[in-house]
Amino acid sequence: MRRSKFNIQIIAKILGVLLIIEAAFMLTALPFSAYYGTNNIFEFKLFSSNNDFWPLVISSVIAAAIGAYLFFTARNASKVISKRDGYIIVSLVWVITSIVGALPFFLSGAIPNYSDAFFETISGFTTTGATILTDVEAMPKGLLFWRSTTHWIGGMGIIVLSLAILPFLGIGGMQLFIAEVPGPTPDKLHPRITQTAKRLWGIYVLLTAAETILLMFGGMNLFDGLCHAFGTMATGGFSTRNASIAAFSPYIQYIITLFMILAGTNFTLHYISLHGRIKDVWKNEEYRYYIYSIAVATILIASTLTLIHHGDIEKSFRDSIFTVVSIITTTGFITVDYLIWPNVLWFIIFLLMFVGGSAGSTGGGIKIVRQLLLFKNSLLELKRLMHPQAIIPVRMNNRPVSQDIIFNVLAFFLIYMIIFAIGTFVMSIIGLDFESAIGATAATLGNIGPGIGLVGPVGNYSEIPLFGKWFLSFLMLLGRLELFTVLILLSPAFWKR
Amino acid sequence: MRRSKFNIQIIAKILGVLLIIEAAFMLTALPFSAYYGTNNIFEFKLFSSNNDFWPLVISSVIAAAIGAYLFFTARNASKVISKRDGYIIVSLVWVITSIVGALPFFLSGAIPNYSDAFFETISGFTTTGATILTDVEAMPKGLLFWRSTTHWIGGMGIIVLSLAILPFLGIGGMQLFIAEVPGPTPDKLHPRITQTAKRLWGIYVLLTAAETILLMFGGMNLFDGLCHAFGTMATGGFSTRNASIAAFSPYIQYIITLFMILAGTNFTLHYISLHGRIKDVWKNEEYRYYIYSIAVATILIASTLTLIHHGDIEKSFRDSIFTVVSIITTTGFITVDYLIWPNVLWFIIFLLMFVGGSAGSTGGGIKIVRQLLLFKNSLLELKRLMHPQAIIPVRMNNRPVSQDIIFNVLAFFLIYMIIFAIGTFVMSIIGLDFESAIGATAATLGNIGPGIGLVGPVGNYSEIPLFGKWFLSFLMLLGRLELFTVLILLSPAFWKR
Repeated sequence: MRRSKFNIQIIAKILGVLLIIEAAFMLTALPFSAYYGTNNIFEFKLFSSNNDFWPLVISSVIAAAIGAYLFFTARNASKVISKRDGYIIVSLVWVITSIVGALPFFLSGAIPNYSDAFFETISGFTTTGATILTDVEAMPKGLLFWRSTTHWIGGMGIIVLSLAILPFLGIGGMQLFIAEVPGPTPDKLHPRITQTAKRLWGIYVLLTAAETILLMFGGMNLFDGLCHAFGTMATGGFSTRNASIAAFSPYIQYIITLFMILAGTNFTLHYISLHGRIKDVWKNEEYRYYIYSIAVATILIASTLTLIHHGDIEKSFRDSIFTVVSIITTTGFITVDYLIWPNVLWFIIFLLMFVGGSAGSTGGGIKIVRQLLLFKNSLLELKRLMHPQAIIPVRMNNRPVSQDIIFNVLAFFLIYMIIFAIGTFVMSIIGLDFESAIGATAATLGNIGPGIGLVGPVGNYSEIPLFGKWFLSFLMLLGRLELFTVLILLSPAFWKR
Repeated sequence: MRRSKFNIQIIAKILGVLLIIEAAFMLTALPFSAYYGTNNIFEFKLFSSNNDFWPLVISSVIAAAIGAYLFFTARNASKVISKRDGYIIVSLVWVITSIVGALPFFLSGAIPNYSDAFFETISGFTTTGATILTDVEAMPKGLLFWRSTTHWIGGMGIIVLSLAILPFLGIGGMQLFIAEVPGPTPDKLHPRITQTAKRLWGIYVLLTAAETILLMFGGMNLFDGLCHAFGTMATGGFSTRNASIAAFSPYIQYIITLFMILAGTNFTLHYISLHGRIKDVWKNEEYRYYIYSIAVATILIASTLTLIHHGDIEKSFRDSIFTVVSIITTTGFITVDYLIWPNVLWFIIFLLMFVGGSAGSTGGGIKIVRQLLLFKNSLLELKRLMHPQAIIPVRMNNRPVSQDIIFNVLAFFLIYMIIFAIGTFVMSIIGLDFESAIGATAATLGNIGPGIGLVGPVGNYSEIPLFGKWFLSFLMLLGRLELFTVLILLSPAFWKR
């Protein structure tokens, strides 16, 4: 590790570039604002909740101005980024883009409280999808488009983060998730971040476009199609309807289910299958268990629901697979209120909140590969007890996994659980009942969105007290950045020269 | 490991001896039966719930007969006990003594259903203290004495198990808990099991006697004094009163609090302090954190309760320390219904259910030393991220802890959590509501007794469906035997030659 100061120049430069990109994305909401808006767009208006055109423009200008200032004052920065700089950049990016990204909601007056606006925005960028809006359909369309765009940008960020940056930082066994993709070339995704990013983003854009088109075939207009494709591919969960995906046809529900499954898959596997090596995809253990988990949970729930729905197998299957996939991938779209299901069924859903998607996907949570490693290691411990002299390593994709990685994954799991306990505790202190407290904590830390209790599928986060909203925002950030990225900034040793 | 068959002879012999001991203990309840009984003890009666004299005699005879048969047919067994034999013996002992120990309850008709009687008995032997009795005071005194005696025997078993047998079997880092007691002599508790057992049992008997006397000073009669001392020292929790310890004076509540704290302490520390090395006790990290945890939780709860009780500081402090100590040591005595406390407070209590007492005490649960190791290891992971080349071991009592032990402890924790999740799931399936399901699972797996929901402090386990009672009995056994001892028997590799 370099013993110098932090490279504030390079930190400023990167933040500057990203703010300019954010400003550009804000402008993409303008056509929708102009088309659907009921106001004259040439009339300058702020804090008038049915006008979102000027708030978006002003916000974009502010973002661009700050970005440009940071970029130009730091344009001569050296290109060397240390690990420590990396941690700071990653955490700051999500916070600052959220602070600025909340401006359109706030300046339009559509979300009068800035805390609420920030909550909604960081929920977007972290692809959580937890909302404080009680009436989504009353929002101006430009703002709704920006809201879904935050998901999409966040998803892009996460793909690069989890497949290019975190492995370099050594977080939570992330180095494993790339190295262990089966195939002949060890560096098949090319180590350089920009190369990796371009290829994965290509896949991301391709899948988003494909989903949008398929949704439009099902009768959605371009606006709804794009918003929902953004929400799906980022495993976000913001919808444009109060009823979420229950507002749409079974065809659309199936399409979204399919694309949620794709979004929860390691993107390197998409890359591999696009290169014709589809067989290799199934060789990936995490992928297999991801599919098995979905299948088992779906069958369990669907068979019980069939009894309740008096034999309507199709609806039972659809409700079941949609909900299972939505929760396991941490998307959080809703077609049915699972809290009115029998206890056992929603308890399965609750457990799935701790599974999370695949590593290297846009999904959040603990993630399948970590669960798998921990489970294997626990079982092997019984073997180790019987053969105390033998060295019995955990194997993943037929290769032994180093003890360092297992330690890292175990620490990840424990810290996740400790934060979950602390989170539930804090939520109880500010007055939530037990179920809502664990629900809100699990759903934000896991970047899911809807939880159980007050914040269940038909509820939202509007009633959470102010402090709770900031706290849950922090949990979303923690979960999204794989805990360590943020926690390391809180450790005193990090700041020592 | 020996590649021979299991040594069935030695297994039978040890079980035989223990059944004879059980038979002898059953007879100790007879004086209380005779003294308090309303029936003529010379009149032979079974299945008459107000007569417990003959059921105790018959049960004792049955236990002795089976024991003698096993002992004499196997009396020429070789003295070699392999590890595998060890696992089988330990698990079988708890199951078989419970099967036989349930007879007095069943034969008297006081607990008409054998499943219930078994539940009550294994709850006793595992020092859980979960009860299916709705009216404890209606039970004949002889049976109540036997019920409390099962705690005391179970506690004796656990001390030997955790300080002499499990370290030899290498379970859950138990080898650590002995080796790491600070002091000049490395083998201060003498490695031979019988020696160790005698010394620790001496301390156990001494503390039980001391508590009984102090309780009798407070106005309890010999019967109540012994029963409650048994329940305390074993961290069991069966009381002779429906109101549990709320039926007694503040003085008695404080005495029981003190002895619960002692019972939840590593017994090697008692041995050390009895030898005048009291300073060395505080050098033990687990002990320090045990005391800190009690202090912090008590202060948190007491300060809030003081507000609720309008300034009754003494009662707030007493309710708070009693409940905290009762739960953290996994005793489960009750002086107050913590479920009517504000959410936050009973959530603290719920979290304490996962702490458990010290290793080498009679307490159950995950235990402080494991929590401490895991927590330290998680924090160090942040350091390891910053210095990936450095080897940074976890230290306990100023000595580095080997990776093997940490792995073992981590596996223990994970399996504990997996079983907790499965348990809650099973309890939901059989129809318990969410809170009761997690409450019953946490309280039985942790050998606590009262949980939350239906099985909270003023509830009991009588309403749990039959299958659920057997399942929870299994959880008590799993928790009591540190998971691995039982789980290893379920692994196919164990049974291969």
